[in-house]
Amino acid sequence: MIIKRGHYLQVEDGVWSVQKGDILIEGNVVKKLGEVTEREAAGHEVFDAAGMLVLPGLVNGHQHTPMSLLRCYSDDLPLMDWLNKKMLPAEMKMTSEDRYKGAMLSLAEMIKSGTTTYADMYIDMDTIAEAVASSGMRGALARGMIAMDANYSDRIEESRQLVKRWNGAANGRITTMIAPHSPYMCPPDFLKAAVELAKELNVPLHTHLAETADERQMIQDKYGSSPVQYLQEAGFFEDTHVVLAHGVHFTAEDLEVLQQVKRGGIIHNPVSNAKLGCGTSDLLALRRHGIAVGLGTDGPGSASTLDLFMEMKAAAWMQKLLHSDASALSSHDILTMATKTGAEILGLGNDIGTIEEGKKADLIMINMNQPHFIPAHEPTSLLVYAAAGQDVDSVIIDGEVVMKHRELLTMDEEKVMFEAQQSAASLLNRL
Amino acid sequence: MIIKRGHYLQVEDGVWSVQKGDILIEGNVVKKLGEVTEREAAGHEVFDAAGMLVLPGLVNGHQHTPMSLLRCYSDDLPLMDWLNKKMLPAEMKMTSEDRYKGAMLSLAEMIKSGTTTYADMYIDMDTIAEAVASSGMRGALARGMIAMDANYSDRIEESRQLVKRWNGAANGRITTMIAPHSPYMCPPDFLKAAVELAKELNVPLHTHLAETADERQMIQDKYGSSPVQYLQEAGFFEDTHVVLAHGVHFTAEDLEVLQQVKRGGIIHNPVSNAKLGCGTSDLLALRRHGIAVGLGTDGPGSASTLDLFMEMKAAAWMQKLLHSDASALSSHDILTMATKTGAEILGLGNDIGTIEEGKKADLIMINMNQPHFIPAHEPTSLLVYAAAGQDVDSVIIDGEVVMKHRELLTMDEEKVMFEAQQSAASLLNRL
Repeated sequence: MIIKRGHYLQVEDGVWSVQKGDILIEGNVVKKLGEVTEREAAGHEVFDAAGMLVLPGLVNGHQHTPMSLLRCYSDDLPLMDWLNKKMLPAEMKMTSEDRYKGAMLSLAEMIKSGTTTYADMYIDMDTIAEAVASSGMRGALARGMIAMDANYSDRIEESRQLVKRWNGAANGRITTMIAPHSPYMCPPDFLKAAVELAKELNVPLHTHLAETADERQMIQDKYGSSPVQYLQEAGFFEDTHVVLAHGVHFTAEDLEVLQQVKRGGIIHNPVSNAKLGCGTSDLLALRRHGIAVGLGTDGPGSASTLDLFMEMKAAAWMQKLLHSDASALSSHDILTMATKTGAEILGLGNDIGTIEEGKKADLIMINMNQPHFIPAHEPTSLLVYAAAGQDVDSVIIDGEVVMKHRELLTMDEEKVMFEAQQSAASLLNRL
Repeated sequence: MIIKRGHYLQVEDGVWSVQKGDILIEGNVVKKLGEVTEREAAGHEVFDAAGMLVLPGLVNGHQHTPMSLLRCYSDDLPLMDWLNKKMLPAEMKMTSEDRYKGAMLSLAEMIKSGTTTYADMYIDMDTIAEAVASSGMRGALARGMIAMDANYSDRIEESRQLVKRWNGAANGRITTMIAPHSPYMCPPDFLKAAVELAKELNVPLHTHLAETADERQMIQDKYGSSPVQYLQEAGFFEDTHVVLAHGVHFTAEDLEVLQQVKRGGIIHNPVSNAKLGCGTSDLLALRRHGIAVGLGTDGPGSASTLDLFMEMKAAAWMQKLLHSDASALSSHDILTMATKTGAEILGLGNDIGTIEEGKKADLIMINMNQPHFIPAHEPTSLLVYAAAGQDVDSVIIDGEVVMKHRELLTMDEEKVMFEAQQSAASLLNRL
């Protein structure tokens, strides 16, 4: 395929700039950027991108797809009521079919708002992997493991099976991780076993970390350490690859520990963190310590939206607010977090995250011919501060057009919506 | 016109609920809600709203329309650089033609994102009023007045002429206000003259108030009082109607003063305030003091977007963040701010802000048949936390369909965009 007549965004030293030229895609790879000769173009389908800006697809580094069935089910409640009275009882009643339908709904919403790669932490991951495979999405999947005692071998085994069965599946679109849920849901031995498994299988660790002030207190009371130190003691940061979701409540000592991380980083979820009243991460402090930061939505049960354009805005607004400084993080920094750095944190930096010859063709196209994108002083700023997911016109993942002019090509959107609505209604009836 | 097969939202005691039924519009008024008989329907055009949720149009209580030409022109700069190096020099070079084109662009964007009423504070208001009249928008217009000495009679006169010429114009769509710019741009005598003028003409006062910590300090140093006290001493809150934009930095004493306000209230601009690093208003404190709070975007030069759905999200997220409490303000509170309370603050509460028989027909329709609105657990929550302006399908203002299925009917969208782009480029060339 050749994408013609459009402009595309490239990044160098953290600064994004608009390039004019064609994009030649062969198979799932960006073969050539710039001028494509007639000979090179021969036999390739042409995608007319006039008026469009082509970006690398967005990377959502933390999600729980089936929870779309619980979108706006318990908003505006205190955190513990949200969790214990609404989320957990409903999740307990979900069937495998519910999870599939919820995952499909999340995948549809993510594609429609420009996400081309995401990380999922949930249970019943074979079911979710099937949904990811059929949707055309790129996914880094992990079985979220909770353990309150020493009987956790089944979950370790499930995680192992997920990696064996799915790592590299769907033409490489699916990768896998090992996911002990969080410091407060995992005793020390279990954490150590998870770290060992990740090393053995050579896949990243994915966990929740330092999401709330309560978590800090809980781990302090139980183990006499901070959540970061607690993970460190279990071997979490020694020669591992770690994808750490949230990272709201860190001490200066925690940051010293985290700057040792060589592979991976923090996934910042500003909407969920704000909406649940958890606080917001200090991204400037993380950057000063050289800690990589990507963006995620968290599950739709908290964020309500899976639109990473919202997360980009929220991240920028909240840092400027936190630091009382309009220059705290630029739109260029934010767009990098949502693409290149997110990809690197998931271990996919060689394949995706930027538009470059030889990388996978994960691209999204934005129709810039709209009042809220005029005038065109600074495209990166427009994308971060003025765009919403609905401005995404078309999406290509792994060389395949999965959405064209807002129409999903890999799934039946009406069916996905209908079945998710049915599943959600039936789930609530069973409560 | 009859809007058929849709659902509409009504509010009672601060709680929004979905109603099923038709909406009969005669002239510019909602004549009947619920079941419309065939006899009543006779001769009326039918608007099919199947799958749509009909809401009262959104109210943007603070804007500077021509500044759309400076959208994303100076993002991520420190506040004083943003203002002195970028905004002011560019505004100084704007021609009347530029202001018209910028206003038209803002009006197009506002309609496309569901705003049906807005407040404008700028110069050259005849030009802006012409744009508002032709666009179909409902506008509360004010000549923003700056004075550094006693020579301000021309601006007072301009304000008087604006009220005489335009108050009640365009079938009542245009109303007017008197707008001394801010405590820091207006000496005491000038403020008093503005208050007198507003009383004489019986229109609201509109001003910026307590936007930054610097403003507090400046007024303290110069007059030995807080910005609120300074306005109070000029007679601002005595038997007046006041529309106060921003309200970020208040003391407990300020809140005591403000709770005496019987007509009007605060317009909260969370995106602009965060993006410029000014802080965020404590809406819970304002509510405890019974002070009405509406929403605004501020100018596109700071907010970058005129989408009130973004402001609704930002307002909710930031209050939950500020108070570390997920239950701080509900989606119902937020939607009320963006509609009913905003209308009341602008003095239009009897005419607009809710869908009621006898009120003006200012309505927007949202297509709820999209993945990010599934499942339909709580429509108000979906609108506040998951919707964006692009989800608005159609807009009716004063009984007139101004946008149908995303197509603007009162303006030539391509022409508006082209001319604004040309104006912005030419403006920058003249700098």
